[in-house]
Amino acid sequence: MKNYRVSAENKISLRELDPADRSEFLGDKDQAEAEVKHITRELDDLQERLYAEGKRAMLFVIQAPDTGGKDGTIRHVFGNLNPQGCRVASFKAPSATELAHDYLWRIHAAMPRRGEIGIFNRSHYEDVLVVRVHNLVPREVWEKRYAQINAFEKMLTEEGTTIVKFFLHISKEEQKERLLARVADPTKHWKFNPADLKERALWDEYQRAYEDVLNKTSTAYAPWYVIPANRKWYRNVIVARIAHQTLKDLDPQYPETNIDFSNIAIE
Amino acid sequence: MKNYRVSAENKISLRELDPADRSEFLGDKDQAEAEVKHITRELDDLQERLYAEGKRAMLFVIQAPDTGGKDGTIRHVFGNLNPQGCRVASFKAPSATELAHDYLWRIHAAMPRRGEIGIFNRSHYEDVLVVRVHNLVPREVWEKRYAQINAFEKMLTEEGTTIVKFFLHISKEEQKERLLARVADPTKHWKFNPADLKERALWDEYQRAYEDVLNKTSTAYAPWYVIPANRKWYRNVIVARIAHQTLKDLDPQYPETNIDFSNIAIE
Repeated sequence: MKNYRVSAENKISLRELDPADRSEFLGDKDQAEAEVKHITRELDDLQERLYAEGKRAMLFVIQAPDTGGKDGTIRHVFGNLNPQGCRVASFKAPSATELAHDYLWRIHAAMPRRGEIGIFNRSHYEDVLVVRVHNLVPREVWEKRYAQINAFEKMLTEEGTTIVKFFLHISKEEQKERLLARVADPTKHWKFNPADLKERALWDEYQRAYEDVLNKTSTAYAPWYVIPANRKWYRNVIVARIAHQTLKDLDPQYPETNIDFSNIAIE
Repeated sequence: MKNYRVSAENKISLRELDPADRSEFLGDKDQAEAEVKHITRELDDLQERLYAEGKRAMLFVIQAPDTGGKDGTIRHVFGNLNPQGCRVASFKAPSATELAHDYLWRIHAAMPRRGEIGIFNRSHYEDVLVVRVHNLVPREVWEKRYAQINAFEKMLTEEGTTIVKFFLHISKEEQKERLLARVADPTKHWKFNPADLKERALWDEYQRAYEDVLNKTSTAYAPWYVIPANRKWYRNVIVARIAHQTLKDLDPQYPETNIDFSNIAIE
């Protein structure tokens, strides 16, 4: 997956990354779905160990353009986890209470506890995406945020939270088809927001803002992966593999106990 | 108050700072109390403006050895503020929920909203004080925290919170007298904690840890003041003056409104 990982040595231009790329999984859709199913069982076991160990937390951040597949990824890749140890936080437009604080306040409050896997559906990155594209704060405020976010994520990782960030990369044409599908399908009307069309008109501005996010905030301790996401099954299997590998590398262990079980009387 | 402000150019050694110093207020106890009373009325007005303006927050952090006077300072200097716009947060030994997160998590959650004055009775600095002195985490964890705290406070100030930090500096002899007073006075028994005596045995280790806090985390954006605190009235008048000057410098303004009041009909 190294090709998809953004780093100081691997700065990216979204224009040059094919959202329909499938070079990292040679099988077809059925084979991908079978592998995702297998991985979700492994993830469940790893999560239980992480929870039992209780020393470290895991955070997956998911960002994407509208219709990019955030909800679908969470459902298909992480939907099988025990909700006891899994905390999904969705960040909508901030409330008055949230706006009354700095932009990281609500993010910090939603962080997974040690032992938990947290999944952020949108995140603090909106504060350098929508906020930037719509000039909701002046440039001199948002341009400081990349460094603030890196410092924040550095502290989190130093204190025991592993962070991996996914950008679901779709083409403008794919977005058009998905919006048309929502319009055509009454069961998807709830997902259709007329404001999405206004956002779509700002596609290029958003792509530039995403590029800055990816190139400025993909760090050794909290990397971004750009996931080719035009094909949902390909997106799912790649995200599942990265999540799986990350948790395997963490290698969480059931804790030792110093209780003398030979000495416990059960009356 | 420049003498009491710690900075890169004014690193301090607590041993060389007289906790009974009174060079910045030439009057006596009665005069000091009159001035504090006067300042608390001004603070009340400034707080109302800050609240009405609703754009910026103010945070005062108070740290001190046991019996150093944190509660008394809050009561005498800030006790007159409208509780609507004033948020005191006391940080005790962290709960299980709090310990399950990074050490700044509970701090961030307790930050004052824009328009509010927040007062921290103890703070994140405990995580490089008691935590360090008692080896509650390894050195390689706590020694990273100074930089983490500076980055955190930098973000907060860049996002609109003014931060001023007070260290109430008492002598070991003064602490002894105050502990004896608690033992002798049944109305103060609730404040007496036998564990304080164990902490007192670690006086020198704490002083070294405080010095590192003061010298490593007094920044241009979030300065520490070392307040000579053997005399309570002197401590109060100095803290009141610094708080007052800080809020006057902020110069909060009642907001403009674009409602056309000439056009409001009251039926």
